[in-house]
Amino acid sequence: MRQRIDKHRFEPAYAQLASILRNQIAEGVYPPGEKIPSESTISKEYGVSPMTVRQAIGVLTEQGLLDRIQGSGTFVKKLSITESRFELNSLREIFQDSAGTQIKVLQLSLGRADARTAEKLDLSVGQRVILIRRILLRAGRPVMFHEGNVRCDPTRPVVEAELSIGPLSELFTGHCDGSVKKGELELIPTVLGETEAGLLGHAPGTPAFRLEYVVYDFDNAPFGWGWFVAPPEVFRLKTHLGLWE
Amino acid sequence: MRQRIDKHRFEPAYAQLASILRNQIAEGVYPPGEKIPSESTISKEYGVSPMTVRQAIGVLTEQGLLDRIQGSGTFVKKLSITESRFELNSLREIFQDSAGTQIKVLQLSLGRADARTAEKLDLSVGQRVILIRRILLRAGRPVMFHEGNVRCDPTRPVVEAELSIGPLSELFTGHCDGSVKKGELELIPTVLGETEAGLLGHAPGTPAFRLEYVVYDFDNAPFGWGWFVAPPEVFRLKTHLGLWE
Repeated sequence: MRQRIDKHRFEPAYAQLASILRNQIAEGVYPPGEKIPSESTISKEYGVSPMTVRQAIGVLTEQGLLDRIQGSGTFVKKLSITESRFELNSLREIFQDSAGTQIKVLQLSLGRADARTAEKLDLSVGQRVILIRRILLRAGRPVMFHEGNVRCDPTRPVVEAELSIGPLSELFTGHCDGSVKKGELELIPTVLGETEAGLLGHAPGTPAFRLEYVVYDFDNAPFGWGWFVAPPEVFRLKTHLGLWE
Repeated sequence: MRQRIDKHRFEPAYAQLASILRNQIAEGVYPPGEKIPSESTISKEYGVSPMTVRQAIGVLTEQGLLDRIQGSGTFVKKLSITESRFELNSLREIFQDSAGTQIKVLQLSLGRADARTAEKLDLSVGQRVILIRRILLRAGRPVMFHEGNVRCDPTRPVVEAELSIGPLSELFTGHCDGSVKKGELELIPTVLGETEAGLLGHAPGTPAFRLEYVVYDFDNAPFGWGWFVAPPEVFRLKTHLGLWE
């Protein structure tokens, strides 16, 4: 049975119409890829102005359900894997539960930049860097390994911030204190090496995510880089596509 | 030198103010974590109404640069890795270049659901499924492997769609024709097995991404699941944080 628009309701007509059309799409009345009726057809069918129809279609286009194609009409959008995104906010839970979480610093030392660190931090090979290795434990079990390299400049307050083991919610954000202007992140599939595997209590060769970062200061100079490694049961990346109620 | 608001410009005052504040944040005048001056202070300083200041702050809050904290003021947001997201749209380029791309079907057969497929597709073990294995080549080189399992129902048009090797932009979207209502995706670190490694021209054990999917029809029943595997040089997941000009 066709739903009707109730003009006496508090909800504006365009919002009512948007939710009617949304239900029809969810029920498969207009399957993905199909053209929906023209504005004037919908306007006559529901007894609303063409402007109301346009607003309702605007809402659904905004929500990614419809696609207006100039000169051919409005279509129900097909699902596309390439339009999906993975968010890292699931990690926040791990780091915000400070009760069950512990950080163990494994190494904190002054070293010299190798070729890779020199390239990442825009230094010469052999220049001084601070190296930090630490591990995050949840309920006594190791869940994540962090290795960071920071450009060594004793006048920079960031060094102090880097070395301080602050609140847990800051751990994962790593260098992200007030001196960080911007950063780059890359997610890379890897396998645990001997050392990481030993520390994380897994077999060497276990597949894992490596989240690599470079952070920049307000002079746009890179001053820190490093990575977090976690086995996949710690770090799950899931997403949904399409019409989930 | 402090920038001024030009009321004779076409750009509204709030937008001018937003871009002045944005520049100040980018220059480190207000570092991440710091409180910006109150609305009335900014309003006096730039000779604009409190409403204009509120609008400008609204724009920057929308853009993720500022955070209003009830009762304490407005702060420059610190960068946080957990607020970042990885988008799969880089993959679109691969699939939309149909000139240099080729698909090779390796297997297309009727089989029986094993325990895992039965669970994913809500079937009993031994029920019929269609299995497809194919490989994507770019400029003659194999870059991605796809394995898919589809619930076997000869009346469903989706089976035909699944088996047809349509335009390349549809390959990656897999089952995503008009009968797909919704889907789940998970990104998993893995290593190439013997077969995949051989097909993709890599050594077995090479780290790779596995993108696993389940798709549902308009009765909310799962009807297909499978995965794409690609070595990391094909499938790069990068993102940016903070103020990139």
